[in-house]
Amino acid sequence: MGGCASCPADKYKTSQEVADLRAQVDQLQKALALAHSGGASLPPAPPIPAPGNGFDSGVVETLFFPDSKLPCRNMRKPGGCRRPHCEFAHEPTSLTRFLAHLAAATRHLDICVFTITNDDISDVVLDLHRKGVKIRVITDNDQAQTQGSDIDKFRAVGIPVRQDRSPAHMHHKFAIIDGRVLLNGSFNWTRQAVTGNNENVTVMSDARLISAFQTQFNKLWEAFKQ
Amino acid sequence: MGGCASCPADKYKTSQEVADLRAQVDQLQKALALAHSGGASLPPAPPIPAPGNGFDSGVVETLFFPDSKLPCRNMRKPGGCRRPHCEFAHEPTSLTRFLAHLAAATRHLDICVFTITNDDISDVVLDLHRKGVKIRVITDNDQAQTQGSDIDKFRAVGIPVRQDRSPAHMHHKFAIIDGRVLLNGSFNWTRQAVTGNNENVTVMSDARLISAFQTQFNKLWEAFKQ
Repeated sequence: MGGCASCPADKYKTSQEVADLRAQVDQLQKALALAHSGGASLPPAPPIPAPGNGFDSGVVETLFFPDSKLPCRNMRKPGGCRRPHCEFAHEPTSLTRFLAHLAAATRHLDICVFTITNDDISDVVLDLHRKGVKIRVITDNDQAQTQGSDIDKFRAVGIPVRQDRSPAHMHHKFAIIDGRVLLNGSFNWTRQAVTGNNENVTVMSDARLISAFQTQFNKLWEAFKQ
Repeated sequence: MGGCASCPADKYKTSQEVADLRAQVDQLQKALALAHSGGASLPPAPPIPAPGNGFDSGVVETLFFPDSKLPCRNMRKPGGCRRPHCEFAHEPTSLTRFLAHLAAATRHLDICVFTITNDDISDVVLDLHRKGVKIRVITDNDQAQTQGSDIDKFRAVGIPVRQDRSPAHMHHKFAIIDGRVLLNGSFNWTRQAVTGNNENVTVMSDARLISAFQTQFNKLWEAFKQ
Protein backbone atom coordinates (compact mmCIF):
# COMPACT_ATOMS: atom_id res chain seq x y z
CA MET A 1 0.00 0.00 0.00
CA GLY A 2 1.75 3.24 1.07
CA GLY A 3 5.43 3.92 0.53
CA CYS A 4 6.25 4.76 4.14
CA ALA A 5 8.49 2.11 5.66
CA SER A 6 8.41 3.35 9.23
CA CYS A 7 4.66 3.77 9.68
CA PRO A 8 3.20 0.27 9.91
CA ALA A 9 5.02 -0.77 13.07
CA ASP A 10 4.43 2.60 14.67
CA LYS A 11 0.78 2.51 13.71
CA TYR A 12 0.40 -0.97 15.09
CA LYS A 13 1.92 0.11 18.38
CA THR A 14 -0.35 3.15 18.63
CA SER A 15 -3.49 1.29 17.68
CA GLN A 16 -2.60 -1.32 20.29
CA GLU A 17 -2.34 1.44 22.86
CA VAL A 18 -5.71 2.84 21.79
CA ALA A 19 -7.25 -0.62 22.08
CA ASP A 20 -5.71 -1.11 25.54
CA LEU A 21 -6.91 2.29 26.70
CA ARG A 22 -10.42 1.68 25.37
CA ALA A 23 -10.53 -1.63 27.22
CA GLN A 24 -9.34 0.12 30.37
CA VAL A 25 -12.00 2.85 30.03
CA ASP A 26 -14.65 0.20 29.54
CA GLN A 27 -13.49 -1.72 32.58
CA LEU A 28 -13.30 1.40 34.78
CA GLN A 29 -16.77 2.49 33.71
CA LYS A 30 -18.15 -0.90 34.74
CA ALA A 31 -16.24 -0.74 38.02
CA LEU A 32 -17.56 2.73 38.73
CA ALA A 33 -21.13 1.68 37.96
CA LEU A 34 -20.71 -1.27 40.33
CA ALA A 35 -19.18 0.91 43.05
CA HIS A 36 -22.03 3.39 42.77
CA SER A 37 -24.60 0.62 42.81
CA GLY A 38 -23.38 -0.36 46.26
CA GLY A 39 -21.69 -3.59 45.16
CA ALA A 40 -19.82 -4.99 48.12
CA SER A 41 -16.93 -6.47 46.24
CA LEU A 42 -14.56 -5.23 43.59
CA PRO A 43 -15.49 -5.31 39.92
CA PRO A 44 -15.03 -8.42 37.82
CA ALA A 45 -11.43 -9.35 37.16
CA PRO A 46 -9.78 -7.66 34.27
CA PRO A 47 -7.28 -9.67 32.28
CA ILE A 48 -3.91 -9.69 34.00
CA PRO A 49 -2.35 -6.39 32.99
CA ALA A 50 0.56 -6.63 30.60
CA PRO A 51 3.70 -5.09 32.11
CA GLY A 52 4.33 -1.49 31.19
CA ASN A 53 0.84 -0.54 30.06
CA GLY A 54 0.48 1.99 32.82
CA PHE A 55 -2.04 -0.02 34.77
CA ASP A 56 0.22 -2.65 36.14
CA SER A 57 -0.05 -2.32 39.86
CA GLY A 58 0.18 -6.09 40.20
CA VAL A 59 -3.29 -6.27 41.73
CA VAL A 60 -5.62 -8.30 39.54
CA GLU A 61 -8.58 -8.21 41.92
CA THR A 62 -9.61 -8.55 45.54
CA LEU A 63 -12.28 -11.03 46.63
CA PHE A 64 -14.20 -10.68 49.86
CA PHE A 65 -16.30 -13.34 51.54
CA PRO A 66 -18.85 -14.45 52.72
CA ASP A 67 -20.83 -15.12 49.58
CA SER A 68 -24.56 -15.20 50.19
CA LYS A 69 -24.87 -18.55 48.38
CA LEU A 70 -22.75 -21.42 47.09
CA PRO A 71 -22.56 -21.59 43.30
CA CYS A 72 -25.07 -23.78 41.45
CA ARG A 73 -23.31 -26.82 40.03
CA ASN A 74 -25.87 -27.10 37.23
CA MET A 75 -24.43 -23.90 35.77
CA ARG A 76 -21.43 -25.94 34.63
CA LYS A 77 -23.65 -28.13 32.46
CA PRO A 78 -24.74 -27.26 28.93
CA GLY A 79 -28.02 -25.38 29.18
CA GLY A 80 -27.34 -24.29 32.76
CA CYS A 81 -29.74 -24.81 35.65
CA ARG A 82 -33.37 -25.64 34.88
CA ARG A 83 -34.62 -25.96 38.45
CA PRO A 84 -37.44 -23.45 38.94
CA HIS A 85 -36.57 -22.51 42.53
CA CYS A 86 -32.87 -23.29 42.76
CA GLU A 87 -31.38 -21.99 46.00
CA PHE A 88 -27.81 -21.77 44.67
CA ALA A 89 -26.10 -18.80 43.01
CA HIS A 90 -26.40 -18.42 39.25
CA GLU A 91 -24.58 -15.10 39.09
CA PRO A 92 -20.83 -14.64 39.67
CA THR A 93 -19.71 -14.78 43.32
CA SER A 94 -16.36 -14.40 45.02
CA LEU A 95 -16.04 -18.20 44.93
CA THR A 96 -16.76 -18.46 41.20
CA ARG A 97 -14.14 -15.74 40.55
CA PHE A 98 -11.70 -17.67 42.76
CA LEU A 99 -12.46 -20.92 40.87
CA ALA A 100 -12.03 -19.13 37.53
CA HIS A 101 -8.50 -18.10 38.51
CA LEU A 102 -7.61 -21.64 39.58
CA ALA A 103 -9.17 -23.18 36.49
CA ALA A 104 -7.03 -20.91 34.30
CA ALA A 105 -3.91 -22.92 35.23
CA THR A 106 -2.39 -24.57 32.17
CA ARG A 107 0.96 -25.88 33.41
CA HIS A 108 1.60 -25.63 37.16
CA LEU A 109 -0.42 -25.14 40.31
CA ASP A 110 1.33 -24.89 43.68
CA ILE A 111 -1.09 -24.97 46.62
CA CYS A 112 -0.05 -24.13 50.17
CA VAL A 113 -3.22 -24.07 52.27
CA PHE A 114 -3.92 -24.89 55.93
CA THR A 115 -7.39 -26.49 55.42
CA ILE A 116 -8.86 -27.92 52.22
CA THR A 117 -12.38 -29.29 52.50
CA ASN A 118 -14.35 -27.38 49.87
CA ASP A 119 -15.51 -29.74 47.11
CA ASP A 120 -16.15 -26.97 44.58
CA ILE A 121 -12.47 -26.04 44.86
CA SER A 122 -11.19 -29.62 45.01
CA ASP A 123 -13.18 -30.54 41.90
CA VAL A 124 -11.35 -27.84 39.96
CA VAL A 125 -8.00 -29.10 41.27
CA LEU A 126 -8.85 -32.71 40.33
CA ASP A 127 -10.01 -31.57 36.89
CA LEU A 128 -6.75 -29.69 36.30
CA HIS A 129 -4.83 -32.80 37.33
CA ARG A 130 -6.76 -34.84 34.75
CA LYS A 131 -5.85 -32.25 32.11
CA GLY A 132 -2.15 -32.69 32.88
CA VAL A 133 -1.49 -29.59 35.00
CA LYS A 134 1.37 -30.35 37.38
CA ILE A 135 0.04 -29.84 40.89
CA ARG A 136 1.81 -29.82 44.26
CA VAL A 137 0.00 -29.45 47.59
CA ILE A 138 1.38 -28.42 50.99
CA THR A 139 -0.98 -28.57 53.95
CA ASP A 140 -1.10 -29.05 57.71
CA ASN A 141 -1.31 -32.49 59.30
CA ASP A 142 -3.93 -31.47 61.89
CA GLN A 143 -6.28 -30.25 59.22
CA ALA A 144 -5.57 -33.02 56.71
CA GLN A 145 -7.05 -35.47 59.20
CA THR A 146 -10.24 -33.52 59.87
CA GLN A 147 -13.54 -34.75 58.55
CA GLY A 148 -14.18 -33.77 54.94
CA SER A 149 -10.55 -33.07 54.12
CA ASP A 150 -9.92 -33.43 50.40
CA ILE A 151 -6.27 -34.35 50.87
CA ASP A 152 -7.00 -38.09 50.55
CA LYS A 153 -8.78 -37.49 47.22
CA PHE A 154 -5.70 -35.68 45.92
CA ARG A 155 -3.38 -38.46 47.05
CA ALA A 156 -5.66 -41.13 45.55
CA VAL A 157 -5.22 -39.72 42.04
CA GLY A 158 -1.48 -39.20 42.42
CA ILE A 159 -1.24 -35.48 43.25
CA PRO A 160 1.84 -35.10 45.46
CA VAL A 161 0.99 -33.78 48.95
CA ARG A 162 3.41 -32.81 51.71
CA GLN A 163 2.47 -31.92 55.26
CA ASP A 164 3.81 -30.04 58.20
CA ARG A 165 3.91 -32.68 60.95
CA SER A 166 5.11 -30.35 63.72
CA PRO A 167 2.84 -29.16 66.55
CA ALA A 168 2.88 -25.68 64.97
CA HIS A 169 0.67 -24.88 62.00
CA MET A 170 1.42 -24.62 58.31
CA HIS A 171 -1.02 -21.72 58.33
CA HIS A 172 -0.54 -20.18 54.84
CA LYS A 173 -3.48 -19.93 52.48
CA PHE A 174 -1.90 -19.25 49.10
CA ALA A 175 -1.67 -20.73 45.63
CA ILE A 176 0.55 -19.89 42.66
CA ILE A 177 -0.93 -20.41 39.21
CA ASP A 178 1.51 -21.04 36.33
CA GLY A 179 4.11 -18.98 38.21
CA ARG A 180 2.28 -15.80 37.21
CA VAL A 181 -0.72 -15.31 39.53
CA LEU A 182 -0.81 -15.48 43.33
CA LEU A 183 -3.97 -16.06 45.37
CA ASN A 184 -3.37 -15.14 49.02
CA GLY A 185 -5.23 -13.94 52.10
CA SER A 186 -7.17 -15.21 55.11
CA PHE A 187 -9.29 -17.66 53.12
CA ASN A 188 -9.01 -21.36 53.94
CA TRP A 189 -10.46 -23.61 51.26
CA THR A 190 -13.54 -24.60 53.27
CA ARG A 191 -17.28 -24.24 52.87
CA GLN A 192 -17.54 -22.21 56.09
CA ALA A 193 -15.02 -19.72 54.70
CA VAL A 194 -17.16 -19.24 51.58
CA THR A 195 -20.62 -18.68 53.01
CA GLY A 196 -19.96 -18.04 56.71
CA ASN A 197 -16.80 -16.13 57.49
CA ASN A 198 -15.46 -12.70 56.69
CA GLU A 199 -12.45 -13.49 54.52
CA ASN A 200 -10.31 -12.04 51.77
CA VAL A 201 -8.27 -13.25 48.82
CA THR A 202 -5.99 -10.91 46.92
CA VAL A 203 -5.24 -11.95 43.35
CA MET A 204 -1.84 -10.58 42.38
CA SER A 205 0.36 -10.67 39.30
CA ASP A 206 3.37 -8.80 40.69
CA ALA A 207 6.52 -10.69 39.66
CA ARG A 208 8.54 -9.85 42.80
CA LEU A 209 5.70 -10.95 45.08
CA ILE A 210 5.20 -14.19 43.18
CA SER A 211 8.93 -14.87 43.27
CA ALA A 212 8.97 -14.42 47.08
CA PHE A 213 6.03 -16.82 47.52
CA GLN A 214 7.48 -19.34 45.05
CA THR A 215 10.75 -19.36 47.00
CA GLN A 216 8.79 -19.89 50.21
CA PHE A 217 6.78 -22.71 48.61
CA ASN A 218 9.93 -24.46 47.37
CA LYS A 219 11.53 -24.09 50.80
CA LEU A 220 8.55 -25.68 52.57
CA TRP A 221 8.28 -28.37 49.88
CA GLU A 222 11.84 -29.43 50.75
CA ALA A 223 11.33 -29.02 54.50
CA PHE A 224 8.25 -31.27 54.53
CA LYS A 225 9.87 -34.06 52.50
CA GLN A 226 9.24 -37.35 54.26
CA MET B 1 11.08 13.38 7.22
CA GLY B 2 9.73 10.53 5.09
CA GLY B 3 7.63 11.07 2.03
CA CYS B 4 4.40 9.64 3.40
CA ALA B 5 1.71 12.25 2.92
CA SER B 6 -1.06 10.50 4.73
CA CYS B 7 0.70 9.81 8.03
CA PRO B 8 0.94 13.15 9.85
CA ALA B 9 -2.80 13.85 10.00
CA ASP B 10 -3.53 10.27 10.83
CA LYS B 11 -0.85 10.27 13.50
CA TYR B 12 -2.18 13.50 14.96
CA LYS B 13 -5.67 12.07 15.10
CA THR B 14 -4.45 8.92 16.84
CA SER B 15 -2.23 10.70 19.35
CA GLN B 16 -5.14 13.02 20.19
CA GLU B 17 -7.27 9.96 20.81
CA VAL B 18 -4.58 8.46 23.04
CA ALA B 19 -4.36 11.70 25.04
CA ASP B 20 -8.14 11.83 25.41
CA LEU B 21 -8.34 8.22 26.47
CA ARG B 22 -5.54 8.70 29.00
CA ALA B 23 -7.36 11.70 30.48
CA GLN B 24 -10.54 9.64 30.66
CA VAL B 25 -8.73 6.75 32.41
CA ASP B 26 -7.23 9.18 34.91
CA GLN B 27 -10.59 10.74 35.64
CA LEU B 28 -12.32 7.37 36.01
CA GLN B 29 -9.59 6.06 38.32
CA LYS B 30 -10.04 9.08 40.59
CA ALA B 31 -13.83 8.67 40.55
CA LEU B 32 -13.47 4.98 41.38
CA ALA B 33 -11.05 5.63 44.24
CA LEU B 34 -13.50 8.19 45.63
CA ALA B 35 -16.44 5.80 45.26
CA HIS B 36 -14.54 3.08 47.12
CA SER B 37 -13.20 5.34 49.85
CA GLY B 38 -16.56 5.33 51.67
CA GLY B 39 -16.16 7.19 54.97
CA ALA B 40 -15.63 10.91 54.64
CA SER B 41 -13.41 10.90 57.72
CA LEU B 42 -10.75 8.83 55.98
CA PRO B 43 -7.49 10.52 55.17
CA PRO B 44 -6.76 10.98 51.51
CA ALA B 45 -4.38 8.36 50.17
CA PRO B 46 -0.96 9.75 49.34
CA PRO B 47 0.34 9.32 45.81
CA ILE B 48 1.47 5.81 44.93
CA PRO B 49 5.29 5.64 44.94
CA ALA B 50 6.67 6.96 41.68
CA PRO B 51 7.30 4.30 39.04
CA GLY B 52 10.83 3.16 38.57
CA ASN B 53 12.02 3.44 42.15
CA GLY B 54 11.76 -0.27 42.71
CA PHE B 55 8.52 0.03 44.66
CA ASP B 56 6.27 0.85 41.75
CA SER B 57 4.40 -2.42 41.86
CA GLY B 58 2.64 -1.53 45.10
CA VAL B 59 4.48 -4.30 46.96
CA VAL B 60 6.51 -2.80 49.80
CA GLU B 61 7.74 -6.10 51.19
CA THR B 62 6.72 -9.64 52.07
CA LEU B 63 7.29 -11.07 55.53
CA PHE B 64 7.42 -14.78 56.22
CA PHE B 65 7.20 -16.47 59.61
CA PRO B 66 8.19 -18.26 61.82
CA ASP B 67 10.94 -16.11 63.26
CA SER B 68 13.56 -18.15 65.10
CA LYS B 69 13.31 -15.86 68.16
CA LEU B 70 11.08 -13.18 69.66
CA PRO B 71 12.66 -9.71 69.61
CA CYS B 72 14.60 -8.58 72.68
CA ARG B 73 12.67 -5.88 74.50
CA ASN B 74 15.87 -4.40 75.90
CA MET B 75 16.75 -3.30 72.37
CA ARG B 76 14.10 -0.57 72.70
CA LYS B 77 15.95 0.96 75.66
CA PRO B 78 18.84 3.42 75.34
CA GLY B 79 22.04 1.40 75.22
CA GLY B 80 20.27 -1.72 74.02
CA CYS B 81 20.57 -5.12 75.65
CA ARG B 82 23.45 -5.74 78.10
CA ARG B 83 22.61 -9.31 79.02
CA PRO B 84 25.61 -11.50 78.19
CA HIS B 85 23.62 -14.53 77.01
CA CYS B 86 20.30 -13.02 75.94
CA GLU B 87 18.12 -15.59 74.20
CA PHE B 88 16.04 -13.02 72.29
CA ALA B 89 16.70 -11.58 68.82
CA HIS B 90 18.85 -8.47 68.55
CA GLU B 91 18.85 -8.39 64.75
CA PRO B 92 15.81 -7.49 62.58
CA THR B 93 13.17 -10.23 62.26
CA SER B 94 9.88 -10.48 60.39
CA LEU B 95 8.15 -9.34 63.59
CA THR B 96 10.36 -6.28 64.06
CA ARG B 97 9.70 -5.31 60.40
CA PHE B 98 5.97 -5.80 61.01
CA LEU B 99 6.13 -3.67 64.18
CA ALA B 100 8.07 -0.96 62.31
CA HIS B 101 5.25 -0.65 59.75
CA LEU B 102 2.62 -0.38 62.50
CA ALA B 103 4.69 2.10 64.50
CA ALA B 104 4.95 4.35 61.43
CA ALA B 105 1.25 5.29 61.75
CA THR B 106 0.82 9.00 62.40
CA ARG B 107 -2.93 9.57 61.99
CA HIS B 108 -5.09 6.46 61.57
CA LEU B 109 -4.77 2.73 62.19
CA ASP B 110 -7.61 0.40 61.25
CA ILE B 111 -7.11 -3.15 62.55
CA CYS B 112 -9.27 -6.08 61.42
CA VAL B 113 -7.72 -9.22 62.91
CA PHE B 114 -9.23 -12.53 64.08
CA THR B 115 -6.92 -13.09 67.11
CA ILE B 116 -4.83 -10.50 68.97
CA THR B 117 -2.76 -11.85 71.86
CA ASN B 118 0.80 -10.80 71.02
CA ASP B 119 2.04 -8.26 73.57
CA ASP B 120 4.85 -6.95 71.33
CA ILE B 121 2.22 -5.93 68.81
CA SER B 122 -0.32 -4.68 71.37
CA ASP B 123 2.33 -2.52 73.03
CA VAL B 124 2.90 -0.73 69.72
CA VAL B 125 -0.86 -0.22 69.30
CA LEU B 126 -1.21 1.14 72.85
CA ASP B 127 1.77 3.43 72.31
CA LEU B 128 0.24 4.80 69.09
CA HIS B 129 -3.01 5.43 70.96
CA ARG B 130 -1.11 7.42 73.59
CA LYS B 131 0.46 9.49 70.81
CA GLY B 132 -2.99 10.41 69.47
CA VAL B 133 -3.24 8.05 66.49
CA LYS B 134 -6.91 7.30 65.84
CA ILE B 135 -7.30 3.53 66.15
CA ARG B 136 -10.27 1.28 65.39
CA VAL B 137 -10.24 -2.48 66.02
CA ILE B 138 -12.50 -5.17 64.55
CA THR B 139 -12.08 -8.71 65.89
CA ASP B 140 -13.95 -11.96 66.48
CA ASN B 141 -15.91 -12.60 69.67
CA ASP B 142 -14.66 -16.19 70.05
CA GLN B 143 -11.06 -15.08 70.02
CA ALA B 144 -11.56 -11.92 72.06
CA GLN B 145 -12.55 -14.11 74.99
CA THR B 146 -9.58 -16.46 74.79
CA GLN B 147 -6.86 -16.33 77.39
CA GLY B 148 -4.29 -13.65 76.71
CA SER B 149 -6.48 -11.63 74.38
CA ASP B 150 -5.38 -8.00 74.29
CA ILE B 151 -8.83 -6.72 73.39
CA ASP B 152 -9.63 -5.83 77.01
CA LYS B 153 -6.44 -3.75 77.23
CA PHE B 154 -7.50 -1.81 74.15
CA ARG B 155 -10.97 -1.21 75.54
CA ALA B 156 -9.57 -0.14 78.92
CA VAL B 157 -7.70 2.79 77.38
CA GLY B 158 -10.60 3.82 75.17
CA ILE B 159 -9.69 2.30 71.80
CA PRO B 160 -12.98 1.50 70.05
CA VAL B 161 -13.39 -2.23 69.42
CA ARG B 162 -16.19 -3.93 67.49
CA GLN B 163 -16.76 -7.67 67.28
CA ASP B 164 -18.43 -10.19 65.06
CA ARG B 165 -20.84 -11.94 67.43
CA SER B 166 -22.17 -14.45 64.89
CA PRO B 167 -21.23 -18.16 65.00
CA ALA B 168 -19.13 -17.56 61.85
CA HIS B 169 -15.68 -16.03 62.09
CA MET B 170 -14.43 -12.54 61.39
CA HIS B 171 -11.36 -14.24 60.00
CA HIS B 172 -9.48 -11.36 58.31
CA LYS B 173 -5.95 -10.52 59.40
CA PHE B 174 -5.33 -7.07 57.96
CA ALA B 175 -4.49 -3.55 59.06
CA ILE B 176 -4.50 -0.25 57.17
CA ILE B 177 -1.94 2.33 58.23
CA ASP B 178 -2.75 6.00 57.54
CA GLY B 179 -4.85 4.92 54.55
CA ARG B 180 -1.64 4.25 52.61
CA VAL B 181 -0.18 0.89 53.65
CA LEU B 182 -1.96 -2.45 53.95
CA LEU B 183 -0.68 -5.38 56.01
CA ASN B 184 -2.50 -8.59 55.03
CA GLY B 185 -1.98 -12.35 54.95
CA SER B 186 -2.41 -15.47 57.05
CA PHE B 187 -0.78 -13.98 60.16
CA ASN B 188 -2.89 -13.69 63.32
CA TRP B 189 -1.40 -11.36 65.91
CA THR B 190 -0.31 -14.13 68.30
CA ARG B 191 2.95 -15.38 69.72
CA GLN B 192 2.46 -18.81 68.15
CA ALA B 193 2.13 -17.17 64.73
CA VAL B 194 5.48 -15.40 65.22
CA THR B 195 7.75 -18.21 66.41
CA GLY B 196 5.75 -21.35 65.63
CA ASN B 197 3.68 -21.25 62.47
CA ASN B 198 4.39 -20.83 58.79
CA GLU B 199 2.72 -17.52 58.03
CA ASN B 200 2.91 -14.57 55.66
CA VAL B 201 2.22 -10.85 55.68
CA THR B 202 2.26 -8.82 52.48
CA VAL B 203 2.94 -5.12 52.93
CA MET B 204 1.29 -3.22 50.08
CA SER B 205 0.97 0.41 49.01
CA ASP B 206 -1.29 -0.08 45.99
CA ALA B 207 -4.05 2.55 46.12
CA ARG B 208 -6.74 0.38 44.52
CA LEU B 209 -6.05 -2.49 46.91
CA ILE B 210 -6.09 -0.22 49.95
CA SER B 211 -9.30 1.38 48.77
CA ALA B 212 -10.96 -2.05 48.50
CA PHE B 213 -9.84 -3.06 52.00
CA GLN B 214 -10.84 0.31 53.46
CA THR B 215 -14.31 -0.10 52.00
CA GLN B 216 -14.50 -3.58 53.51
CA PHE B 217 -13.33 -2.28 56.90
CA ASN B 218 -15.92 0.50 56.88
CA LYS B 219 -18.64 -1.98 55.94
CA LEU B 220 -17.76 -4.35 58.79
CA TRP B 221 -17.38 -1.43 61.22
CA GLU B 222 -21.00 -0.52 60.51
CA ALA B 223 -22.19 -4.13 60.50
CA PHE B 224 -20.69 -4.84 63.95
CA LYS B 225 -22.12 -1.71 65.59
CA GLN B 226 -23.79 -2.73 68.85
